[in-house]
Amino acid sequence: MNEHIVKAYDEELTALAGQITEMGGLAEEIVSEAVLTLTRLDADKANEVIAKDARIDKMQTDLEEQAILLIARRQPVAGDLRDIVAALRISNDLERVGDLAKNIAKRVIIISDSVQSKKLTLGVEHLSEMAQMQLKNVLDAYAQRDEEMANLVRERDEEIDALYTSLFRELLTYMMEDPRQISMCAHLLFCAKNIERIGDHATNIAENVYYMERGEMPGSDRPKSDELSAIENGA
Amino acid sequence: MNEHIVKAYDEELTALAGQITEMGGLAEEIVSEAVLTLTRLDADKANEVIAKDARIDKMQTDLEEQAILLIARRQPVAGDLRDIVAALRISNDLERVGDLAKNIAKRVIIISDSVQSKKLTLGVEHLSEMAQMQLKNVLDAYAQRDEEMANLVRERDEEIDALYTSLFRELLTYMMEDPRQISMCAHLLFCAKNIERIGDHATNIAENVYYMERGEMPGSDRPKSDELSAIENGA
Repeated sequence: MNEHIVKAYDEELTALAGQITEMGGLAEEIVSEAVLTLTRLDADKANEVIAKDARIDKMQTDLEEQAILLIARRQPVAGDLRDIVAALRISNDLERVGDLAKNIAKRVIIISDSVQSKKLTLGVEHLSEMAQMQLKNVLDAYAQRDEEMANLVRERDEEIDALYTSLFRELLTYMMEDPRQISMCAHLLFCAKNIERIGDHATNIAENVYYMERGEMPGSDRPKSDELSAIENGA
Repeated sequence: MNEHIVKAYDEELTALAGQITEMGGLAEEIVSEAVLTLTRLDADKANEVIAKDARIDKMQTDLEEQAILLIARRQPVAGDLRDIVAALRISNDLERVGDLAKNIAKRVIIISDSVQSKKLTLGVEHLSEMAQMQLKNVLDAYAQRDEEMANLVRERDEEIDALYTSLFRELLTYMMEDPRQISMCAHLLFCAKNIERIGDHATNIAENVYYMERGEMPGSDRPKSDELSAIENGA
């Protein structure tokens, strides 16, 4: 490749990483806003969250297109190929995070006539603080290619799972105590599950930060001599 | 390209489509088995379903790898590129279908000590019959590149959504009537949601069958003159 093409290629790779960072920022924003609409039962704000999700969807489609074009045009190998594949996967995860936040917002609209109850939403708020921290940390880990920080995110996912399990039981107890709360609590169960799944996506992203650096998924027993590793090594 | 390379390339494309068909068959199987374990509250069988999901995950990873290699090595354009991109996306959807079935199986293990109740599970069974039919039809539409059948799948998704909504209300009513059923019904709510989401993935696959034929997603306002269309047209 001549110098001009190499420079354009590097710029395309940098642009792809920049798009992930931008998408990640938007994903953080939408999660934080979705949870805020839930604690305030604010249907107007919920509609804004739903509209914002469409922007994340569009970014994912654009990123996929650019990644495929990059692979076809530049035939990247080794680390470059891994970066592009990781960007493709991470954009899928961020798109799903947006969907999960949108689903919380949709439920807020359904339950917006209910009486606000700090007691009921407190657990969901706490869970979402943990999930948001995981999302923030894993996006930092991606931007800084920090494998160690990514590993911390993976390890902390079980704290979210444990809190979710205890919240699930707590909400069932509220349902049993007061049948008038059953509908509200059922929607809160789903909101809690969505947040727990946002944590799972943070973990997926962390696995892809590891993959970018190591060329395999963590805990994978895939032999390093397989075909993709071969092409990654320049074959 | 010489004749030998063209033949190898065609074989690779056919192999990719074959893998989607195989993954699809496995996804149909796992959904049907997950629902069966639910109606029978069969924890042993549920463990088999969980194990089977790992096979679908592995197939998705393999397919992604092969698709990326194909794009890098063959620099496909037009219809071939669309087929590969669609296969990538469809394999993601099928992998998610497997996850949702696995999640049903995990819940069966949790509630397996409950008393079997045909009344409670009947609605979930009915919903899953519709979702399974959608999955079967869309996989046929993919194999036969049948855009019309794919459109029918997209149209029928709202029937699943409507049935899910009525089932959600029904399960809440059972919870209010008998607080001892709250835990069981909460898990059934999630199982019903999982099945409704399997229907969404069938719709996503249908959209990709359309994309394979038309070069754009249905209802998309993306201009045909964008970059990916340009390379698809051989630029």
